[in-house]
Amino acid sequence: MLRRSFVSIIAAGVLAALPLAAAAQAQTDPLPSWNDGATKAAIVDFVAAVTTEGGPDYVAPNNRIATFDNDGTLWVEQPMYVQLAFALDRVKAMAPDHPEWKDKEPFKSVLAGDMKSVAASGKKGLAEIIAATHAGMSTEDFEKIVTDWIATAKNPETGKLNTAMIYEPMLELIDYLKANGFDVFIVSGGGIEFMRPWTETTYGIPPENVVGSSIKLKYEESDKGPVIMRLAELNFVDDGPGKPVGIQSHIGKRPIAAFGNSDGDFQMLEWTTTGPGKRLGMIVHHDDAAREFAYDRDSHIGKLDKAMDAAPKEGWHLISMKDDWKQVFPDQ
Amino acid sequence: MLRRSFVSIIAAGVLAALPLAAAAQAQTDPLPSWNDGATKAAIVDFVAAVTTEGGPDYVAPNNRIATFDNDGTLWVEQPMYVQLAFALDRVKAMAPDHPEWKDKEPFKSVLAGDMKSVAASGKKGLAEIIAATHAGMSTEDFEKIVTDWIATAKNPETGKLNTAMIYEPMLELIDYLKANGFDVFIVSGGGIEFMRPWTETTYGIPPENVVGSSIKLKYEESDKGPVIMRLAELNFVDDGPGKPVGIQSHIGKRPIAAFGNSDGDFQMLEWTTTGPGKRLGMIVHHDDAAREFAYDRDSHIGKLDKAMDAAPKEGWHLISMKDDWKQVFPDQ
Repeated sequence: MLRRSFVSIIAAGVLAALPLAAAAQAQTDPLPSWNDGATKAAIVDFVAAVTTEGGPDYVAPNNRIATFDNDGTLWVEQPMYVQLAFALDRVKAMAPDHPEWKDKEPFKSVLAGDMKSVAASGKKGLAEIIAATHAGMSTEDFEKIVTDWIATAKNPETGKLNTAMIYEPMLELIDYLKANGFDVFIVSGGGIEFMRPWTETTYGIPPENVVGSSIKLKYEESDKGPVIMRLAELNFVDDGPGKPVGIQSHIGKRPIAAFGNSDGDFQMLEWTTTGPGKRLGMIVHHDDAAREFAYDRDSHIGKLDKAMDAAPKEGWHLISMKDDWKQVFPDQ
Repeated sequence: MLRRSFVSIIAAGVLAALPLAAAAQAQTDPLPSWNDGATKAAIVDFVAAVTTEGGPDYVAPNNRIATFDNDGTLWVEQPMYVQLAFALDRVKAMAPDHPEWKDKEPFKSVLAGDMKSVAASGKKGLAEIIAATHAGMSTEDFEKIVTDWIATAKNPETGKLNTAMIYEPMLELIDYLKANGFDVFIVSGGGIEFMRPWTETTYGIPPENVVGSSIKLKYEESDKGPVIMRLAELNFVDDGPGKPVGIQSHIGKRPIAAFGNSDGDFQMLEWTTTGPGKRLGMIVHHDDAAREFAYDRDSHIGKLDKAMDAAPKEGWHLISMKDDWKQVFPDQ
């Protein structure tokens, strides 16, 4: 019996190591920054349902697609979109090479720090700023510009790095979904090539899993070899009804879970949750003025109105930043 | 000592199972359908170089991107592109609902089987056939149409399923690259949504790893809920200089290995192999009339001329189907 017990000990220690580890992990809370309650339960129940083999709601791993909006869903979008801050900073950095901007709107107002006049220049002015700062260089040069900028760029109100103004509970959610076989994508109205240089280090989401708005690209020869140039021509707007189209173009599968925070996410949530089988749609509600910002229906940035009204009927869960999140940022 | 020997046996059998299996696999030829020679050696040497940690050519797994053309590189493109056969079959299937086609070119000639007149209708005629057969339905309906068609569609010369007319050596190459940490993409001039329904079962390449040409899509409400409609408007041509652009849009990374077979792959090969570090560019040369087809410079389908001339200078390897492949198709 001694020999058999040795075998048993070895078998228990080695063969069973894997299931034991899995069981141990299941007992650790994968979402520690979420307060217990209906919202957290909805997430955990959904993941359990779609990953239970043989269960009525089981979804094979290759169809476990989850999509996340970025601005206001994964990182702070107040007091202005980070990409707009990037564009304004670029105007200032490029100004020495553009003496004509001193007398030319909207650049003149950007350089003077007169944000009211910049805003008054409207969509046309914004398009000119984007064209001047986002086009006319190669994709590799643009990647370097963004990488250099994001390394030091700070939120103007908190003085913290933008890449630190990210939501810890959403990072946990991304990791939790990935650990359960999900393929996680960003689907943002922001520029696809503005996001790609830092999404992997910031969120663990690689460039190929980023869907966003884009300008046209052109492959051409240069004296440094072939390059892909960024043209001052809009290609695709990945916002509102554009989000399901961006999802279809890039992923070719309908998500089973989607996370947003504004009316720009309405169609992504609708497309996701009206598909067959169990689905999860969630909206980050910015109701926490103390720890972040409080805004919804009347905000110019991240307006949440139509989607908030539709949520109960559509079965979308509102994530209350105030009530559902124990901790907002990673460093708190 | 008896007890220790038991422990040793268990330890050898259980603890060491994983590394032993890995060592065994390394000694098995991962490319059995490739004849030994310079081409196979170039593949194996490249993979060894970029996966050797600490080596001068090491590439981290997240940057091991490989791209494959489809028509003529992964499956047979003669005597006509499979997608063209699909379009012609669809015209015939849809004809009862379009009595006007009996008197309207190019549909009249398609229905009469008069391929010379269809060809004479040129790009305009082809665009009309594509619009009639590829647009006007939802993405989900189109996926079903393609799935149903590909299940029985056969090559007109061999009478075999198109999905069986795939190159066994390339399947082995895809698996070999994946086993070595590569992320493998199709980058084809063919329609992205024509390929996605069958690439996973046929090649093991999932929909999200397929890049191709596309028509515009539009999200809209229908009486069956929201749908994404396919519009009769060209969106993107993923061929020639479009391939690096498609790669950048979808993947956001520059490949380190690319495989094609025609001048339509020139820029993809160039973009891939002119990047820094070790790179691999290969061209399938159809020189095997006995087992497949023999064509290059003068072919209307899969014309290989400019890229063949450039190959020696650019360091691109020609894969001779006749000399480098022991076996062409999976069932031989």
